Amino acid sequence: MSDQKLQVIPLGGLGEFGMNSMALRLGDDIIVIDAGMMFPDAELMGVDIVTPDFSYLEENAGHVRGLVLTHGHEDHIGGVPFLLAQLNVPVYGTAFTLALVERRLEEHSLLEQARLNVIKPGERLTLGAFSIEFIHVTHSIVQCVALAITTPLGVVIHTGDFKVDPTPTDNELFDLHTLAAYGKRGVLLLLSDSTNVDRPGYTESERAVAPRLEDLFVRSPRRLVITCFSSSIHRLQQIVDLAEEYGRKVAFVGRSMLATTEIAHDLGLLKIPNGILLRPQDLMQTPPNKVVAVVSGTQGEPMSAMSRVAVDNHKSLSIEPGDTVALSARIIPGNEKAIYRMMNHLARRGADVIYGPMNPPVHVSGHGSAEELRLVLNLVRPRFFLPIHGEYRQLAKHAQLAQHLSHAGLEATFVLESGETLEIDDMGARKGEPIPVGRVCIDSGTLDEVVEDMVIRDRRHLSEDGFVLPIIAINKHSGKPEGLPEIVSRGFMSLEESSEVLQEARNIVIKTIDNSTAEERGDWGVIQEKIRVDLKRYLTKQTSRRPLIMPVILEV
Amino acid sequence: MSDQKLQVIPLGGLGEFGMNSMALRLGDDIIVIDAGMMFPDAELMGVDIVTPDFSYLEENAGHVRGLVLTHGHEDHIGGVPFLLAQLNVPVYGTAFTLALVERRLEEHSLLEQARLNVIKPGERLTLGAFSIEFIHVTHSIVQCVALAITTPLGVVIHTGDFKVDPTPTDNELFDLHTLAAYGKRGVLLLLSDSTNVDRPGYTESERAVAPRLEDLFVRSPRRLVITCFSSSIHRLQQIVDLAEEYGRKVAFVGRSMLATTEIAHDLGLLKIPNGILLRPQDLMQTPPNKVVAVVSGTQGEPMSAMSRVAVDNHKSLSIEPGDTVALSARIIPGNEKAIYRMMNHLARRGADVIYGPMNPPVHVSGHGSAEELRLVLNLVRPRFFLPIHGEYRQLAKHAQLAQHLSHAGLEATFVLESGETLEIDDMGARKGEPIPVGRVCIDSGTLDEVVEDMVIRDRRHLSEDGFVLPIIAINKHSGKPEGLPEIVSRGFMSLEESSEVLQEARNIVIKTIDNSTAEERGDWGVIQEKIRVDLKRYLTKQTSRRPLIMPVILEV
Repeated sequence: MSDQKLQVIPLGGLGEFGMNSMALRLGDDIIVIDAGMMFPDAELMGVDIVTPDFSYLEENAGHVRGLVLTHGHEDHIGGVPFLLAQLNVPVYGTAFTLALVERRLEEHSLLEQARLNVIKPGERLTLGAFSIEFIHVTHSIVQCVALAITTPLGVVIHTGDFKVDPTPTDNELFDLHTLAAYGKRGVLLLLSDSTNVDRPGYTESERAVAPRLEDLFVRSPRRLVITCFSSSIHRLQQIVDLAEEYGRKVAFVGRSMLATTEIAHDLGLLKIPNGILLRPQDLMQTPPNKVVAVVSGTQGEPMSAMSRVAVDNHKSLSIEPGDTVALSARIIPGNEKAIYRMMNHLARRGADVIYGPMNPPVHVSGHGSAEELRLVLNLVRPRFFLPIHGEYRQLAKHAQLAQHLSHAGLEATFVLESGETLEIDDMGARKGEPIPVGRVCIDSGTLDEVVEDMVIRDRRHLSEDGFVLPIIAINKHSGKPEGLPEIVSRGFMSLEESSEVLQEARNIVIKTIDNSTAEERGDWGVIQEKIRVDLKRYLTKQTSRRPLIMPVILEV
Repeated sequence: MSDQKLQVIPLGGLGEFGMNSMALRLGDDIIVIDAGMMFPDAELMGVDIVTPDFSYLEENAGHVRGLVLTHGHEDHIGGVPFLLAQLNVPVYGTAFTLALVERRLEEHSLLEQARLNVIKPGERLTLGAFSIEFIHVTHSIVQCVALAITTPLGVVIHTGDFKVDPTPTDNELFDLHTLAAYGKRGVLLLLSDSTNVDRPGYTESERAVAPRLEDLFVRSPRRLVITCFSSSIHRLQQIVDLAEEYGRKVAFVGRSMLATTEIAHDLGLLKIPNGILLRPQDLMQTPPNKVVAVVSGTQGEPMSAMSRVAVDNHKSLSIEPGDTVALSARIIPGNEKAIYRMMNHLARRGADVIYGPMNPPVHVSGHGSAEELRLVLNLVRPRFFLPIHGEYRQLAKHAQLAQHLSHAGLEATFVLESGETLEIDDMGARKGEPIPVGRVCIDSGTLDEVVEDMVIRDRRHLSEDGFVLPIIAINKHSGKPEGLPEIVSRGFMSLEESSEVLQEARNIVIKTIDNSTAEERGDWGVIQEKIRVDLKRYLTKQTSRRPLIMPVILEV
């Protein structure tokens, strides 16, 4: 028996897509599992990166024992520099995961002081009240682990991201035995990946991509260009193997592709036969039917290598008629338009483009489908279940799926969104007090360029109907307006259309000032607000538009 | 023999998704096929509707003999009011298509003067040099036609949108016989729908949805809510039939759902058994297991009925735990996020949500897949082939597919984008002179609120980094600045962050003015531009942001 309380505190990734981060707290000990980022959508005007708000951890800085990483995808490690900049805790992860983290830390000049500790599957690590065993799982990136976290209250299993691949290309199977052993002994709480709960059946093995890739090698009469995630080492290995078989040289193209393949090669995770590698700058000098270019930028990111190749603006690769370009990655929801635009450009250059909707696709998911999620639930047999990594619809489905299994012992499932917490003690499990969480928006790669919500709101407002600025010069001696008010606007209406409306708007401003009391006129804040309200009413009526209106008073 | 020239002039929908419109010209006669609209994406800041630029038709107003509509989807008829407002030509279409057009024209007060003419499959119509036969085709909306257009140079077949449904729910088969007869006699040019060229095999029959819909009726313990396109009359008929079978009453919810079902019912196209219809306002008073609500707003449009239901802001329908909500429509690329957000809200209210990725989906496409496109090509056996309705990647694939068929007689395929033209005469076919085309962006439902490109560009600029406005008061007598320049900004940086930067920016403005010659200072345009350039350099260097900079000079 224990009178302690375990708190499960999702900082990100529950009820939202990406930026996964979870804290566990037991008394004075806190551990953090993953610190991911999210790529913002168009609704976050001009923002480049979004991370969770780590202020809960900052406030409890003295208690945080360490950051444990399950694997090296951006939505699990992309926030590490931002967290470490606030709180330089020790970091634990597999060699490959940490190598990717190192690269990020170096970009932010944080590598030197960082305390990175390599762990391996099967090893144990004690952080305060938590004893963590690392369990190898299969996923679309190498060296992924699930966590079995022993606490005084019982064992918590965190799956990380996973699929149950029965035939992984590196023959490193999901360590179901260890998971089963924990299940047999009894598990308090399971936290399991919900990404593909919508999909019935099993996710295909990574090996299922081999014949589809081979088809590309067989059928491409000329240059073969494949774009995939640079971290998909299994996929890259298959491409390299096929290139050797079919007598093509391999050129890795793109900054992240070059960096990641170098890391994977150094760690012995990517085997590259001698003499097969081609420098990007030699691509166009090699016979087209003797090369395969593996290019980063699957999501149509504007500055990525693949996007630049598509608009023929890449220094080492040009598409020529008859080349084949294949997308070997999923289309992340929200990126469809950008990816299709890229494919249109490639088709305009005469390439045969192979992508998403074509069947069978040159891609399989790295996340387990419904049957794999059921398998893990049945092996682990937890008392409590909390679905993680997904939007609300997916978490709810995963909870429903667990309830339908009705295996003896499942006492309750919980659907939490980031910031909602779960408390477990000897009496059972229940929702706890929420903690403040949120999104931190960052404009570019640096640490301090945080974009305030207010600024984003303004940008959204500006993007819809532009702005209208009435400018009134007021004589500082007399307190009276000097001359007529000026009105400037952009993004509102074209000059011709708006001239009449804005002319009348000037009269409205004058009328508002004239109709104000001397007292009101003395208080610029009041007069600005009155002008704003009157102008807004007038413009909405005349134009049905709602520009941002910001009266400016200039003292002259 | 003829010394005439046939011009094929795509005004929209080739190389872009939506706003399909095509003109054919022979000497002094022009006919227009379809006048669609496009729903803009987030990149078109705040714009509500996009139509093709019809100025080519306006310039040739005296020659336009009529507008022929293939079917009633928005991407084929949504631009009709905007075209007719410029050019009141007679309009031809099936009864259902014209009924939908009437509704649009009424909204724009254009119905009275419009000249609408109902046509039927099998009928012929002569417009100038063009003799048009209407051929029934199957698609996801009722009363669709393809066009066989006989010209002095030969026959042009325009498929409209189609699938080859072997078992349509209304038993009205695609009239392959007529198509075959034209093919046998010889066809000059085929224009064929490319939407689903990416998909191998055959598109499933609309009837394939029946068992999936039935599954919903069988398994839903409580209220069943289905969202589908209001124009999918076949789909609605299947839902009504199942409702009758399973003893549920049907409530149509949403403005367009109510309007379209009324039109379809009046025309005898939607059969509604007596006593089965429920008024939306009676929904919540009926036992939940005795109703099905059919709701418009499949794409998560913010003002649609389904979106309002999702946030519990609809006057007649509230979701309660245990209700089932199914999406019976495709997810149009670009709308994923909005649709998933809607589904998340519904799941939060306790609904079991059924949508896109689930297998088998409660939806089939209305467009033919690769094998159907091959069938039509083989039946029609055209001399020339021009793929229509698709982005470049799809048009290119469709052209490739036709070339691989290598049936005797196919002389050439062409991939054109809107504005590029095709010329055919006795010598053959070739690309002609391009004509000016483009997009007309409209801010709301009215005819005259066209948004200029310039305004959209400004909005995009504003949306990324906001604006910075230096304001300088200049004494009209002395020509000298009065007091310090003021700088206002929004959407740029937060107040605290920017105060230092903007303080220094004021000094830059002063310096720029001081360093200018008297002549420059006399020309406000010059001085504004100098200030803009200097400020831009400074702000980019200091903040890496590129706000819209617009110096204002105020004469006092």
